[in-house]
Amino acid sequence: MPENLDPQYRRDPVTGRWVIIAPIRSLRPLTLAHSKPHARTGAGHAHCPLCEGAEANTPNEVYAIRDANSTPNGPGWQLRVVPNKFPAVHPLGEPVYLSEGAGDLFDSLPGFGEHELLIECPHHEVTPIALSDPEMTQVLTAYRERILALGGNPLYEYATIFKNIGAEAGASLAHLHSQIIATPVVPEAVRNELEMSRAYYDRRRRCVFCDILREEHTERHRVVAESASFIAICPFAPRFAYETWVLPKSHDSRYEAQTDTQYAELASLLKQTLGKLDTVLAEPAMNYYLHTSPLRSANLRYYHWHFEIVPRIARQAGFEWGSGCFINAVAPEKAAADLRAAKPPPIEAALGL
Amino acid sequence: MPENLDPQYRRDPVTGRWVIIAPIRSLRPLTLAHSKPHARTGAGHAHCPLCEGAEANTPNEVYAIRDANSTPNGPGWQLRVVPNKFPAVHPLGEPVYLSEGAGDLFDSLPGFGEHELLIECPHHEVTPIALSDPEMTQVLTAYRERILALGGNPLYEYATIFKNIGAEAGASLAHLHSQIIATPVVPEAVRNELEMSRAYYDRRRRCVFCDILREEHTERHRVVAESASFIAICPFAPRFAYETWVLPKSHDSRYEAQTDTQYAELASLLKQTLGKLDTVLAEPAMNYYLHTSPLRSANLRYYHWHFEIVPRIARQAGFEWGSGCFINAVAPEKAAADLRAAKPPPIEAALGL
Repeated sequence: MPENLDPQYRRDPVTGRWVIIAPIRSLRPLTLAHSKPHARTGAGHAHCPLCEGAEANTPNEVYAIRDANSTPNGPGWQLRVVPNKFPAVHPLGEPVYLSEGAGDLFDSLPGFGEHELLIECPHHEVTPIALSDPEMTQVLTAYRERILALGGNPLYEYATIFKNIGAEAGASLAHLHSQIIATPVVPEAVRNELEMSRAYYDRRRRCVFCDILREEHTERHRVVAESASFIAICPFAPRFAYETWVLPKSHDSRYEAQTDTQYAELASLLKQTLGKLDTVLAEPAMNYYLHTSPLRSANLRYYHWHFEIVPRIARQAGFEWGSGCFINAVAPEKAAADLRAAKPPPIEAALGL
Repeated sequence: MPENLDPQYRRDPVTGRWVIIAPIRSLRPLTLAHSKPHARTGAGHAHCPLCEGAEANTPNEVYAIRDANSTPNGPGWQLRVVPNKFPAVHPLGEPVYLSEGAGDLFDSLPGFGEHELLIECPHHEVTPIALSDPEMTQVLTAYRERILALGGNPLYEYATIFKNIGAEAGASLAHLHSQIIATPVVPEAVRNELEMSRAYYDRRRRCVFCDILREEHTERHRVVAESASFIAICPFAPRFAYETWVLPKSHDSRYEAQTDTQYAELASLLKQTLGKLDTVLAEPAMNYYLHTSPLRSANLRYYHWHFEIVPRIARQAGFEWGSGCFINAVAPEKAAADLRAAKPPPIEAALGL
């Protein structure tokens, strides 16, 4: 029987945990094998499928910021969003739940959704701090545009926006890119945050994130950096060494509801924070991802959008997978002190000049 | 302020998730840096702190299988259990819950518990399939002995038993060893399995694992191998490619309640399964861990002890951390077919002869 490459959501009958089975992902070309993520190694610039001029290597763009006289899927762009060539989920089919086995033991669902690649710049940059402030601002406003566009399809409940920097963080291509996966369900991690923060609100009539920010802003020993409207902190109980969250100081559950000025301010603080991590941890592999309220959500009183940045410098072991409890060798108070003291590396170093 | 090296449990105020902050773990010597786990590289045999003759390098043993005329903490042993020199938790102090911050926002608990190293053989072996069947049986019966001994302390509710094979799976030493962490709480992953399988039992008056085994035994397309009393399967919704579970066919929630004959039979099936994974995945980094009912538990009708083996061949990326949903590129039906067809590598190859 030939292997079925169609993606599928499956529910574990014991834990209720959903996974995505996506055999097509095993066909991806992996040009990043090195563990130092920012080095310009791997297949390199000449063969990069994401550089300007290589547009024929990607599916047709669904969003782009382009020069006035350029044409779609040709050169002359600053940022492009294209469907992922090796998608974990795809827009075909319908979200129809299936059961199999005696007593309907095994639940599944075709892998319905959209998996997009957001190419952050036309030139071959590999570290986020090499982006200019306006370029980083374009990335953050493009996140908003994709949330609004994907929210136009009522079958999607959530868009997970994330970024992998370096092979050890799961990146297969070096050229700066983010990814977006729209799904018919709110993913477990976000659902759990929504449920827990709602329970907190029901008890205290306050947003738990606002309470955390008030506390951190007073105590200051877990603050990494801040601007007028945003703050970067190491959370009280981080799973990962040097885990850092970036949050708006004012309450809002919807990332997409910020003003253009705020995205520009956020871009500057995010770059500063990523740069500090680069300095302290010598260009670690990292992930960051956005936690925001579900698509088409009103401003929820109990939830607060934020980015979580997780350096990948320790490896999860049998204890973490077996217990669900993470062992973190660096207290967040030390991590924040290290990061506060650090300056981002000079841009020349980031550019390899 | 000097850094406090005492371990601490902390609860994230948003998700309720507990983590262990253990700064002493950052002081561990890492002799394994290679990604191919079974190779005899790193600091190598001559400096291995776990080999016979190097007993002075470890804290005093708390359990051992020894020659009749040998003395504790000297040579002449087949298996030793010693406290971990760089423990994630330690037996000092009392499990006293603390709160800090306005509104008692931040909960913590001193890192109370025991963290043990189980050295599986006196000679410098690095792959589990190099153990003889009697040696592997000793390892599995030693797990029982530690569960019973740690269960003697009423302050401990659970003992997590796990094994890291290879640097990419979190191992810092090559010499075959398992680890045991006793904690005053049942870890989240096990608590979730207990709660979900109890809910299943309440609805159907059947153990969900027994239902799964009945289904898999009939359908057979996710069976990897089996013996009279045990079966290895790839689960329906695995988080990891080639994830494999080993379960007893007869219902019991307590690993420690097996007979000596059963541990010997289990040793043989576990070795066979690990060997098949070595063949198909070219000696991958792997973790396995035991899920069993809490210490001093009766035989729970709704829970079923088992091992979970998770090869570490793909890297978790921003999507997994951000969404809590794992993308797995290998369907378990394909994984099981590959593993069924594979023979374990010859022992000579495992021994590097």
